[in-house]
Amino acid sequence: MTTAPRTPASPQAPGADEGAAPGAAAASGGGTCGADSFLAMWRDLLPVGRHAPSGGYRRHAWTQADAECRAWFAEQARARGLAYETDRNGNQWAWLGDPEAGDAVVTGSHLDSVPDGGAFDGPLGVVSSFAALDELRARGARPRRPLAVANFGDEEGARFGLACVGSRLTAGALTREQAHALRDADGTGWARAAERAGHDPDAVGPDPERLARIGAFVELHVEQGRALDLLDAPVGIASAIWPHGRWRFDFHGEANHAGTTRPADRRDPMTTYAATVLAARALTGTTGGLATFGKVAVEPNGVNAIPSLVRGWLDGRAADEETLAALVEGVERAAAEHAAREGVRVDVTRESFTPVVEFRHDLRDRIAELLDPERPRSVPVLPTGAGHDAGILSAAVPTAMLFVRNPTGVSHSPAETAAEDDCLAGVGALADVLEGLACR
Amino acid sequence: MTTAPRTPASPQAPGADEGAAPGAAAASGGGTCGADSFLAMWRDLLPVGRHAPSGGYRRHAWTQADAECRAWFAEQARARGLAYETDRNGNQWAWLGDPEAGDAVVTGSHLDSVPDGGAFDGPLGVVSSFAALDELRARGARPRRPLAVANFGDEEGARFGLACVGSRLTAGALTREQAHALRDADGTGWARAAERAGHDPDAVGPDPERLARIGAFVELHVEQGRALDLLDAPVGIASAIWPHGRWRFDFHGEANHAGTTRPADRRDPMTTYAATVLAARALTGTTGGLATFGKVAVEPNGVNAIPSLVRGWLDGRAADEETLAALVEGVERAAAEHAAREGVRVDVTRESFTPVVEFRHDLRDRIAELLDPERPRSVPVLPTGAGHDAGILSAAVPTAMLFVRNPTGVSHSPAETAAEDDCLAGVGALADVLEGLACR
Repeated sequence: MTTAPRTPASPQAPGADEGAAPGAAAASGGGTCGADSFLAMWRDLLPVGRHAPSGGYRRHAWTQADAECRAWFAEQARARGLAYETDRNGNQWAWLGDPEAGDAVVTGSHLDSVPDGGAFDGPLGVVSSFAALDELRARGARPRRPLAVANFGDEEGARFGLACVGSRLTAGALTREQAHALRDADGTGWARAAERAGHDPDAVGPDPERLARIGAFVELHVEQGRALDLLDAPVGIASAIWPHGRWRFDFHGEANHAGTTRPADRRDPMTTYAATVLAARALTGTTGGLATFGKVAVEPNGVNAIPSLVRGWLDGRAADEETLAALVEGVERAAAEHAAREGVRVDVTRESFTPVVEFRHDLRDRIAELLDPERPRSVPVLPTGAGHDAGILSAAVPTAMLFVRNPTGVSHSPAETAAEDDCLAGVGALADVLEGLACR
Repeated sequence: MTTAPRTPASPQAPGADEGAAPGAAAASGGGTCGADSFLAMWRDLLPVGRHAPSGGYRRHAWTQADAECRAWFAEQARARGLAYETDRNGNQWAWLGDPEAGDAVVTGSHLDSVPDGGAFDGPLGVVSSFAALDELRARGARPRRPLAVANFGDEEGARFGLACVGSRLTAGALTREQAHALRDADGTGWARAAERAGHDPDAVGPDPERLARIGAFVELHVEQGRALDLLDAPVGIASAIWPHGRWRFDFHGEANHAGTTRPADRRDPMTTYAATVLAARALTGTTGGLATFGKVAVEPNGVNAIPSLVRGWLDGRAADEETLAALVEGVERAAAEHAAREGVRVDVTRESFTPVVEFRHDLRDRIAELLDPERPRSVPVLPTGAGHDAGILSAAVPTAMLFVRNPTGVSHSPAETAAEDDCLAGVGALADVLEGLACR
């Protein structure tokens, strides 16, 4: 029931058939419905960047797997006769209609992944976007506004530590200098990595003209929690993205011999870190927010050495900024109290912060009417704790998001999944939205 | 008061004067007392393998820094006219007298370090050994038994994860196959690393003939706790090495999105790990043993990802094996209880275990008489939680250890220190012991 979409028994979609001349067939509007083309595209993309031992994906920015994903995107555009372009920030665009005409309706998401991420986070939105265009053609719908599918680069930030680099650059929320200062774990700079992958790093920067030509951006994404599952609904609409941020906690103790140092003489930052992790967990339970330590670095990290330094990163999220501030302050207070008791020094650095994003109510309500004209209020509207390119772009463009049910809620994991029927319901819903916004 | 020994104002010891012909001078027995030669040797060795940013040492087995330490040892032997050899297991020996005669008195320690270790752990014993020979010569003492200084290879196990490789191989406590199976963090095998450093890895193995020729082994070492400081004594004798071991705790949870996964849906191994760290700390306080988590590895170790796996290594030590077993069982029980509560699975693997080592009482008492003939019972006798080559060799050879006061107790850290006066008191004590055992 919750397996990954499989290849259907029906003939594969022409759009993904290597060696065929699918553009004409897909562009003809006959024979290729959104469901068929979705399943064929999904099957094609599935092996790219898959790490066999974990079963997860390692599609990180400017890597070989990323290049394969991008080549796949360009091929999908060409196969459909769409005008393909890469913008100055490395984001990909496939246009149906005149990109210069303005008031475009854009859909899309990203193709990159977290380390050992699932197949759906990102690709579901891009594949569904192309499939929705195919569905519009199969329905014989005639766009009055330009339509585009976009693939935003480096959404997950898995390699360089900052999420949504492509959309941030475009929106002016990240400068060229800041992007060039990013480094991966091997010390390779963002600019060098981009250049090696064939992209001019000096060209990057804000792109207000491009954003001004967009009348609406709709991103479809697999849900990363279980809200739709608990509501028993395949598709929902986003209300808001929770404010969220990353705080680095540096616990400085004193390196010492684990086998000879008396408890009274220890200044062990590992115990202070551990107490802070448990405090974060407790506050998650009482505030309604989420406080997680998922990454840690220890020095010298030897079995028989009390560490000199334990560095832990707090991921904090909450429904509103006041709750988030109280949550993070609570964790900081617990850390400081334990640190003082154990002779450890703790320094806290806010590494990133994204304020709350409230998606446009008019667009959200319009989409609900398009999805269920009889009972628009019955369409689930839900917030999310995860950041998205849609959140970045919402500052400049009317933006909305569709979520597809995630039956286990598991995300950023090889075990992430969605039912085939729900994915196809997502394609149908996105086609309904694009038809309603662009074809009437 | 507790600074590292500095170069004295007096002329440097000939034994360490590059370009001079110190062998004859040192062998002459005139002019070079143990204190002078100690300080000169200490100054020479100090820069080798020092990592400037941390101020600590990175003298790991079969590295360039290790090779420089070994060259230094060979030069010290040559400068004194001692017969130099490297044994089949890469341990270095400098002989005064006939190695084949039997009933030898051997002293020494190791020159390698933990990552960013201090200057004293190991080198203090080797430098003091050469200085004690110089002191014997200055005193005009005439050895009746063969004397030797030894440098045992790879004592800390910093690179290949197993401590005391050189002495274990010699004692037959580690087989050639086991040594060849060791790998460093980069995947380089022990055999390949040894070969690159010019040592034949196929030659390694037990060396009972060599051990049979040793009548006593005395290792001098900086204390790694504060017992001598609390007793206000510069030098003490070891009674025993606590039983100790390493246990790997694998906490298996479920990777998930930190920003979207409800607390109730989480299976977060980081919280289970944290609770286990605090349980180990609490048991350290109540059992009299020591339970430390100093090393951790997390997968996928992403800021916004609940981990799938947290791997923590427990270093456990206690005065006796019963207490140690109870301590480790207590930590395992706490881990299992928290794991069950949080939907996490915990697997515990014992990676190494060293039983208690009780040093020979007759040799210990003899040494106490040599150190303080009037009041031998006033010489401090203390156990240690740290493993040593002396512990490995004690199974085959009458073995004893001298400890030199560590005023802060800090060990395995760049901050490790000992006072110059105490180091020189150690040289004098070791000379007294060697004179008493070998020259009367």
